[in-house]
Amino acid sequence: MNFRDNIIKTIAAKKSAVCIGLDVELNKLPAVLKNEKDPILKFNKEIIEATKDFVAAYKPNLAFYEQFGAKGIEYFEKTLSYMGEDIIKIADAKRGDIGNTSKKYALAFFEHFNCDAVTVSPYMGEDSISPFLEREDKGVFILALTSNKGSFDFQMQKMKDGRYLYEFVIERINAWNAKKNCGLVVGATHPEMLESIRKSAPDLPYLIPGIGAQGGDLENTVKYGFVKNDVLALINSSRGIIFASDGPDFAERAGEEAKKLRDKINNFLK
Amino acid sequence: MNFRDNIIKTIAAKKSAVCIGLDVELNKLPAVLKNEKDPILKFNKEIIEATKDFVAAYKPNLAFYEQFGAKGIEYFEKTLSYMGEDIIKIADAKRGDIGNTSKKYALAFFEHFNCDAVTVSPYMGEDSISPFLEREDKGVFILALTSNKGSFDFQMQKMKDGRYLYEFVIERINAWNAKKNCGLVVGATHPEMLESIRKSAPDLPYLIPGIGAQGGDLENTVKYGFVKNDVLALINSSRGIIFASDGPDFAERAGEEAKKLRDKINNFLK
Repeated sequence: MNFRDNIIKTIAAKKSAVCIGLDVELNKLPAVLKNEKDPILKFNKEIIEATKDFVAAYKPNLAFYEQFGAKGIEYFEKTLSYMGEDIIKIADAKRGDIGNTSKKYALAFFEHFNCDAVTVSPYMGEDSISPFLEREDKGVFILALTSNKGSFDFQMQKMKDGRYLYEFVIERINAWNAKKNCGLVVGATHPEMLESIRKSAPDLPYLIPGIGAQGGDLENTVKYGFVKNDVLALINSSRGIIFASDGPDFAERAGEEAKKLRDKINNFLK
Repeated sequence: MNFRDNIIKTIAAKKSAVCIGLDVELNKLPAVLKNEKDPILKFNKEIIEATKDFVAAYKPNLAFYEQFGAKGIEYFEKTLSYMGEDIIKIADAKRGDIGNTSKKYALAFFEHFNCDAVTVSPYMGEDSISPFLEREDKGVFILALTSNKGSFDFQMQKMKDGRYLYEFVIERINAWNAKKNCGLVVGATHPEMLESIRKSAPDLPYLIPGIGAQGGDLENTVKYGFVKNDVLALINSSRGIIFASDGPDFAERAGEEAKKLRDKINNFLK
């Protein structure tokens, strides 16, 4: 099955377009885990256990694991193993390099870690992305218009033909989608752009960060970014769900927040 | 000491502007290492031992280590420990994310791995780069004009004001350089651009990949990319040096190639 069909199928089966960003931070862990041998693993395991019925995808960001070196990558590997088979596993890595090197990153994320998708940066162009696109069952979410303030620095600068750089990038991504395995990263902090983005890339699945801590507008994100029936979008929330409580009820509260976000989105979708 | 001064000092002390890309590949290792417990580590150790007198910097690319997961990051950590104190250690990682997340990558590369510099991608703008710029002694080589074919896709597209995107990016990087810790990645495959790039960013150190396997022009790269006296440039070679021989003389031959490249550059510099 190609990645696009897997996204459609998973969102339908789970009745959820929620993706949880598993961006653990040692100093935000609940006190109740402080005496665990591996508090990060215990935390991720309990969060996944409590939320998995309400989400379509998990998205651990590599930075939060790399900060601990080899040990952290072990945490990443083990965390993936807790997720089960029916959930989409996205490595938020924002990689991209010359072809020879991107091929190794593709090996890392799709073969070694066996993730279903990876995020990549488009700055180095087509041959930095194409090694990720060889398997139709593995998805590649390419940064288009990101959720941060810095998105104005280059992505929202005008090109010679009057379009924004991110529009120019999206046009190219459409052309790379022969195997139906491309997706876009589009921040929920730009809901006013989502309508025209969806027109320019109607067939791609979107990974949409930026609600919650970053302040994005959920209702308009669903209104303009989602596609009727197929949905084709994942709304990511990280801190708002996983750090909903730092008490002994942390997992339970994360589950409630995940369910609440799922229901809100599903209501807006009606 | 700020990173720029460290680059100047190291190039002067080692009388070399050579950087070696430690991009190991299992299937290219010399047969003589096949029975080692950790052939990759043995290979890197011997290559470093044989080349360290001829180079200013090493640049392991993370992709080649991440492909092995946690074990690979252990290789990366150990490889760094072989390099000694007088050589610049560049993590070729091409990272970049929202501020909160880039901060964790900065922790990973500058604190945990204790590298001297890291490569980053500018697509997400200023707040994706600034967390890397907090320490004046740690360098940040930002992708400007890369060595691959894909550099034509976006970097060499014209902006509304007639400049190329990469020129626009370089202008911003100059403004981020308050602590003298910014640098540029500029491919040797664009020597015709190097003259104007050097005019637009005269003070920044350049990391220049693309000679050797990628076919860049060394003489013009030195002529246009280097700065009188301070040099302010590192020429990277990976495959051309580390895989110069796959026989039992692999380390010796790597040393010869490193020395040859150093001498060629120093001759062009005269």
